[in-house]
Amino acid sequence: MDTLPSPPPGRTAGLMQFVRRRIAAREWPPGTRLPSLRGMALQQGVSKSTVVEAYDRLAAEGAIQARAGAGFYVAGPLAPLALAEIGPRLNRQIDPLWVSRQSLDLGAQASKPGCGWLPDSWMPQDAIRRALRQVARDPDAPLTDYAPALGLPTLRSEIARHLGTRGLAVDPRHILLTDSGTQAMDLLCRFLIQPGDAVLVDDPCYFNFLALLRAHRAHIIGVPHDPDGPDMDRFEAALREHRPRFYLSNTGPHNPTGARLSADKARRIRALAQAHDLILIEDDIFGDFESSPSARLTADDSRDRVAQVGSFSKTLSASLRCGYLIAREDWLDALADLRTATTFSGAGLTQAVIARLLRDGAWQQHTRRLRQRLARARPRAVRLLNALDVRPWHEPEDGMFLWCRLPAGIDGARLAQAGLQQGLMLAPGNVFSQSQSAGGMMRFNVSQMDDPRLPDRLATLLKS
Amino acid sequence: MDTLPSPPPGRTAGLMQFVRRRIAAREWPPGTRLPSLRGMALQQGVSKSTVVEAYDRLAAEGAIQARAGAGFYVAGPLAPLALAEIGPRLNRQIDPLWVSRQSLDLGAQASKPGCGWLPDSWMPQDAIRRALRQVARDPDAPLTDYAPALGLPTLRSEIARHLGTRGLAVDPRHILLTDSGTQAMDLLCRFLIQPGDAVLVDDPCYFNFLALLRAHRAHIIGVPHDPDGPDMDRFEAALREHRPRFYLSNTGPHNPTGARLSADKARRIRALAQAHDLILIEDDIFGDFESSPSARLTADDSRDRVAQVGSFSKTLSASLRCGYLIAREDWLDALADLRTATTFSGAGLTQAVIARLLRDGAWQQHTRRLRQRLARARPRAVRLLNALDVRPWHEPEDGMFLWCRLPAGIDGARLAQAGLQQGLMLAPGNVFSQSQSAGGMMRFNVSQMDDPRLPDRLATLLKS
Repeated sequence: MDTLPSPPPGRTAGLMQFVRRRIAAREWPPGTRLPSLRGMALQQGVSKSTVVEAYDRLAAEGAIQARAGAGFYVAGPLAPLALAEIGPRLNRQIDPLWVSRQSLDLGAQASKPGCGWLPDSWMPQDAIRRALRQVARDPDAPLTDYAPALGLPTLRSEIARHLGTRGLAVDPRHILLTDSGTQAMDLLCRFLIQPGDAVLVDDPCYFNFLALLRAHRAHIIGVPHDPDGPDMDRFEAALREHRPRFYLSNTGPHNPTGARLSADKARRIRALAQAHDLILIEDDIFGDFESSPSARLTADDSRDRVAQVGSFSKTLSASLRCGYLIAREDWLDALADLRTATTFSGAGLTQAVIARLLRDGAWQQHTRRLRQRLARARPRAVRLLNALDVRPWHEPEDGMFLWCRLPAGIDGARLAQAGLQQGLMLAPGNVFSQSQSAGGMMRFNVSQMDDPRLPDRLATLLKS
Repeated sequence: MDTLPSPPPGRTAGLMQFVRRRIAAREWPPGTRLPSLRGMALQQGVSKSTVVEAYDRLAAEGAIQARAGAGFYVAGPLAPLALAEIGPRLNRQIDPLWVSRQSLDLGAQASKPGCGWLPDSWMPQDAIRRALRQVARDPDAPLTDYAPALGLPTLRSEIARHLGTRGLAVDPRHILLTDSGTQAMDLLCRFLIQPGDAVLVDDPCYFNFLALLRAHRAHIIGVPHDPDGPDMDRFEAALREHRPRFYLSNTGPHNPTGARLSADKARRIRALAQAHDLILIEDDIFGDFESSPSARLTADDSRDRVAQVGSFSKTLSASLRCGYLIAREDWLDALADLRTATTFSGAGLTQAVIARLLRDGAWQQHTRRLRQRLARARPRAVRLLNALDVRPWHEPEDGMFLWCRLPAGIDGARLAQAGLQQGLMLAPGNVFSQSQSAGGMMRFNVSQMDDPRLPDRLATLLKS
C-alpha cells in the first residue's frame, strides 16, 4: 500500500540497527526515552543530522515515537508497525502469547500436556445443560437487558457466600463481575499503571501476565520464585531499586510452579507493601483447587492495598466467560466506570447461568470431584515424567501443574516447536520467564496426560 | 490510610489551583506536558522552588506525573488519585459516563426516554429462550472449552452471510468476534493509539466514545456534524492542524443525531484519509436498523485503512454480549493477540446461541419488525416533543434517536438532574459533545416514550 522509503545511508542504517537491537533485547523497554540527538551523536561518534535521520526513519517505521517537545520514546511492542519490526513473530516459541495461540486454536485431536486448563471431558457439561434449560424457562431471566454496572446481584451474593466457606469475608458490594479473570487484571492495570511504571511478577509466572503487562507497556521486574513464595531478599531489593506500583501473583497453586505461599512470606509481603506503598494483586483463579486454604496476600482486616481476582474458567467452563474482582469500594467505582468505558457491560445471561450452578451446589460438588481426580492424576504424571528423566522442580499439593526440569542439554522452546509438528502442544519454560532463564524447564498439566501414546511420543521427541 | 501532607504555603497553593483548573477545564488534557519549571516560574512570576513544590505536591496527589528526564505531564482522568482530584463526581451530569450509569443501574420501573437502547419488551425473548434450549440439547455445543482466538467459525460465517445481504462482501477470516462493539473499539484504540495521539470524533457523538478515548488518554478533536455527515471544511482543517490517527464515527443512523452519511461525503472522507494517512473506524452497530443501506466509510475494494465494528446488543440482546470487528488480515492477527492478552478469549456459548438465531432467520425477522415498529414510534415521539416546544434538529429516516433543541433558556444537564429525582432518565446534550456546546440539546429515544404519563411529566419538568 504505502511506498517503501529509499534505503538509508550506511551510518544511518548502522545507528538504526543499534537502536532496534536494544529495543528487541528489551534493554530499552517500551516507554524508554531515547538519548537526546546530541547525546546519541556524541555517544556513537556520528553527526547530529545522522541521528535525526535515523530517529525519523525509526519513527516512520513505528519502532519509536516522537513526543512534542519531549524527545523520542520506544514505542510499545503492540503498536501496529512495531509488531512487524520487533514483534513476537521472530521468535514465537518463546513469545508469551505462543502457548495461548496453540491452546486456543489447535484442534481437539491434538494432545496438549502444555495446556493451561482441564480437558473438556472433566468439565460439568450435564450440569451446564441443565442450568441453560432452567434459565430458558425462568420468567425473570435477564435475557435481553444490560446487566447492572457491577454485575448480577445474585451471582455477587453467591460468590461472597462461597468465599465465606473458604474463610474469606467479602461484602457482595465489593465484588465487580467481569468477563474473565484476565479482564479483571486488565482493568486493574488500566486503573493503576501508566506506560513505563515498574511492576513485580514472579519469575516464572503465568505467561499471559507478561503479555498483559507488555500490552500496558509496564516495566516488568521478575522476582525468582521458591516453593513457598517469592525469594524475599530479591523481592525487597526490587522494591528499593524499582519502586514498583504493584506485585501481581497467584498464590495458592501457583502457575506454573504449583508453589504454595507460606503464611510467613504472606505476612512479610504485606508488611513490605505497607512500607513501600506497594499494591498487591492476588490472582486467585486456582484457589478453588486447594484442598485446604493456603496463605493469602489478602488479610481480612484490610483490603486497603490488595485487590483479589477470581474466575470460573478453570473449574466450571471457559465458554461461560465470567471472572470477578474484589477491591476497596472507592476503587471498585472507578473500575466499574473503566469497564463501562471499555466494554460497556457484563454478560447478564452468563452470570445467571453460573449463579444457578453455585446456588444449587452443582459447582461446589464438581470442584470437590476435580480435586480428587487431580490428586490421582498428579502421581501418575510424576512417574511418567521421571521415567523420561524430566524432573519436577517441586511436588505440588494441589492444582494441575508440574514445573519440570528437562534432561540436560534440551531446550524447551525447540522441544515445543518439534512437538507442534507432531500435534503435541507443550509449554516451554521461557514463555513464563521475564528473565528468559527457564530455557531448560517445561510446564506440564497432569490432567492432560492420560493419552496412552503420550509416554512414547514424549520419549521420541526428547531423543530427536 | 495515608497521612495528609501539611497544607502548602500561599504561592504554592495558588499555583496548584491554577494547574488544577486548567486540567479540570481540559485546557490541558491528559498527556499534556506541563510548562518547564523555569518557564512556569517566569510565566507566573514565582520562584522556581515554588514551582518545584507545587509540581511535587500535584504529583503526590496524582493530578500530574513526572517522567524521568522528560518533565511533568497531566495524568489521565482515570488514574486512581486523579479521579478524586479532577474526576467526574464534581460534575456528573455532563460526564460522559453519567448516562451509562443511570441507564444500567436505574430500576425497570423508571421511565428512560434518554436510554440508548430498546425496551426489554421489544426484544425477541421467546426466540432467545428457544435458542438456549436448542444449545442445551446440542451434543456439539461449545459448553466448556475456550473459543478459538477469532471466535466461533459458525457465527463468523453467519455474520459474513448477513453483511452480504446488506451489500458488504466480507471474508469470515477477516472477522474477529468480541464481547461487545465497545470492546472492538477498545482493541482498535489499544492497537492504534498512544496517550496524547489526536483522534477525530463527531460533535456530538456517542458519549461512550468520549469515555473510551479519555481512558486511552487520546487528544480528542470534535468536528461539527451535519445531517449528511461531518462538516467537511472543519474535518479537513482538523486533519491539517492535528494530524489525527483515526476518525471514529457511526455512519447510518448516527448516534445521537440520527444523521445519515451521504455518498458524496463518504467518498470525500475516504480520499482525505488516503491523503492524510488517516485511519477510519466505522461503528456500524445501528446499521441493521436501516431500511435501505446508506453510504459507508468502508468501500468494498479496499479495507486498507478502514475498520468496521458491529454488534448484536441493540437488535437482539445486550445480555448475550457479542460484537465483531472487521479489519485487514494483518491487523486482525495483532488485534486477536491483544484480545488474548487482555481478556483471554471470547464467550463461545453466547456465540453459539447467536449463531442459531442468525441461521434460522429469527434475528433477521425480528430486526425487520423492529424497523417497522420504530417507523411508527418516530412520528408519535416527534408530535409529543413538538407539543412541548422541544424541536428535532433533524427528522431521521431510521433508528431510535431524535436529537432535539430544548426550549430557549433550558439547560439539558439541569433538566436531566431534575428528571432523575422523579425517576425520569434523560440524556443531556453535553454528554455527547466534546466541545460542550450542546447544553441546549437533548437526545430522545422514540422506543422509550410510550409511557402515557410521559408528556405530563416532561411538561412539568420543563416548567419547573
